[in-house]
Amino acid sequence: MSQRIANRLEKLRHLLAEKEIDAILISQPENRYYLSGFWGSAGSLLISQKDAILATDFRYIEQAKIQAPDFSIFRITGEVGEWFPKLIADLTLGKLGFEAGHITFELYRKLTSALSEKQSPLKLIPQEGLVESLRIIKEAEEIELIARAAAIGDKAFEHIESVIRPGMTEKQAAWEIEKFLREHDSQSASFDVIVAAGANAALPHHHPSDQPIREGESIVMDFGARVAGYTSDLTRTICLGSPDDKFKKAYDIVLGAQLAAIAIIKDGMTGKEADSLARTVIKEAGYDEYFGHGLGHGVGLQTHEAPRLSYLSSDVLKSNMVFSIEPGIYLPGWGGVRIEDLVVLEGGKVRVISQARKVAK
Amino acid sequence: MSQRIANRLEKLRHLLAEKEIDAILISQPENRYYLSGFWGSAGSLLISQKDAILATDFRYIEQAKIQAPDFSIFRITGEVGEWFPKLIADLTLGKLGFEAGHITFELYRKLTSALSEKQSPLKLIPQEGLVESLRIIKEAEEIELIARAAAIGDKAFEHIESVIRPGMTEKQAAWEIEKFLREHDSQSASFDVIVAAGANAALPHHHPSDQPIREGESIVMDFGARVAGYTSDLTRTICLGSPDDKFKKAYDIVLGAQLAAIAIIKDGMTGKEADSLARTVIKEAGYDEYFGHGLGHGVGLQTHEAPRLSYLSSDVLKSNMVFSIEPGIYLPGWGGVRIEDLVVLEGGKVRVISQARKVAK
Repeated sequence: MSQRIANRLEKLRHLLAEKEIDAILISQPENRYYLSGFWGSAGSLLISQKDAILATDFRYIEQAKIQAPDFSIFRITGEVGEWFPKLIADLTLGKLGFEAGHITFELYRKLTSALSEKQSPLKLIPQEGLVESLRIIKEAEEIELIARAAAIGDKAFEHIESVIRPGMTEKQAAWEIEKFLREHDSQSASFDVIVAAGANAALPHHHPSDQPIREGESIVMDFGARVAGYTSDLTRTICLGSPDDKFKKAYDIVLGAQLAAIAIIKDGMTGKEADSLARTVIKEAGYDEYFGHGLGHGVGLQTHEAPRLSYLSSDVLKSNMVFSIEPGIYLPGWGGVRIEDLVVLEGGKVRVISQARKVAK
Repeated sequence: MSQRIANRLEKLRHLLAEKEIDAILISQPENRYYLSGFWGSAGSLLISQKDAILATDFRYIEQAKIQAPDFSIFRITGEVGEWFPKLIADLTLGKLGFEAGHITFELYRKLTSALSEKQSPLKLIPQEGLVESLRIIKEAEEIELIARAAAIGDKAFEHIESVIRPGMTEKQAAWEIEKFLREHDSQSASFDVIVAAGANAALPHHHPSDQPIREGESIVMDFGARVAGYTSDLTRTICLGSPDDKFKKAYDIVLGAQLAAIAIIKDGMTGKEADSLARTVIKEAGYDEYFGHGLGHGVGLQTHEAPRLSYLSSDVLKSNMVFSIEPGIYLPGWGGVRIEDLVVLEGGKVRVISQARKVAK
């Protein structure tokens, strides 16, 4: 058994014992991959203190054998009402956990009715964020993969900065970035590339349009790479030609808030405390109501995962967590500024992973 | 109000009345888009006989106003336990439907506990496939968009056929296809492009590898384009150099099964009946156990949607449904053959939308 998978399963089994459940059913794709190495798009793991089973269908049996050699493979046929009772038939389980944040209400009903039909005494116990609580702390190898993804993102920014011109559309710029990522060892763009210029930059999640980019506008570019499943996330805001005072002011406030957060965030802070640091800088500058999203989010196999850095978050920041720090100011009708870096908590404080340049205006 | 959105809402409201629910909460992304025009990645619609509300957060408020002018916009702040009671406070609703196949068990619990905390008499009623039952029948404009996506896919196949060479890796070929799609007016590849050569072609959902493609192997290529949200889906299997008899035999059986299905499938058949036609051809040829997936699936805003054509499906095929017909044979260790076209049911029978060539071997 691979040491990496063995360690993860051991940690999960400790959690199962703590939660007093006999086994857990895992189908959230990144959790499934994290625990088994299986990359297919459909399948469930059933993990107990002694079993590690991967249930998947015809399409993925061969792949499952190769990617998840530490798991025994169960072939799914028919509807869940048929295969689920077969999967658990020979295991002596009293309480089976399931991923409440992933399993739909409909699937939950199918599982429970399959059990009651077979008069099974098995109880389904909802679990929230069990595997996520392992994934939130990154292993050295995971940090290395995220750093490789971030380095590709840095180069992509350097590339787009060198080729972007007035008259190029948002879509064209976004495609330039994506092509660069893909042609420089990124498996994919880790999410749809955002290029938002002028008034569009006031929309934090704008979808690139056919609008030509003009001189003097704020241009928000937000994108990430993916290496061996691990993602990166980077935002830079630039301006072609000479930025006006409005841009300079907004830019420097956001940059100041970001640098302050990077300098001050440390081990043991809550996500809410981290967020409020940057938020205070923006508030003091009079832009409070224009920073409507959280300060950041964890990054790993998913581009958005735990921890959350926001005014709602009680997540406690700890060593080897990787997350983004991305304050922004959005002025409807005018545009916006967002600056985002990827960081890791090490030795009690923040180390910045992404290296793309950001120059005070 | 746009006529298209008005028509769809009217149909949905008929269904609400039929199901005896006062309103429905819609958050499945394609359903949300279909009913509102809103393309953002987060938000919920609340639709009653008189209300049409789009609830979304800060990031998408501006976009929501533009894309969903027929909806009133409700700004989400805080956790669901806070905003959900506010959203429904002024509506007089007794029974609220929700998408049981989309809402997670965890969210369901949060919604119900928010209601009980406020001592609300509102009841949550699980609904399955309500909006999907509208989306399954395509409007003329939707068929036109799917046909445009399919035409881009056809051209991409023509392109890859002209440039693919022995020694090119699966990944390189997949990227050639994706670049072509994206540079010819496809918003994205509608799913990760599959290029699977040699033994990899025995894995129906193989992820392209660095393995070089060799002469004489079967090469399965499966990909789709996306136009204004609507997807296409096309599979062709080719062989560089001279195919051997094993390839020719498998290829012609699959092609025969596919052509038979196209000729015979008609209005009123079930998904199971349609599937069994092609399956019989493959079975008679002695390859029964090597065709492990269903014959096809609906295509629209999602690449996989209703109806299903499989031995498990009781879906009844009707006019203006668009779906794939894609039998395959997969021989572990050797390779595979799959041939897939996109079709629409018109005037009682199948019209083939995709036009990429497929030559008997």
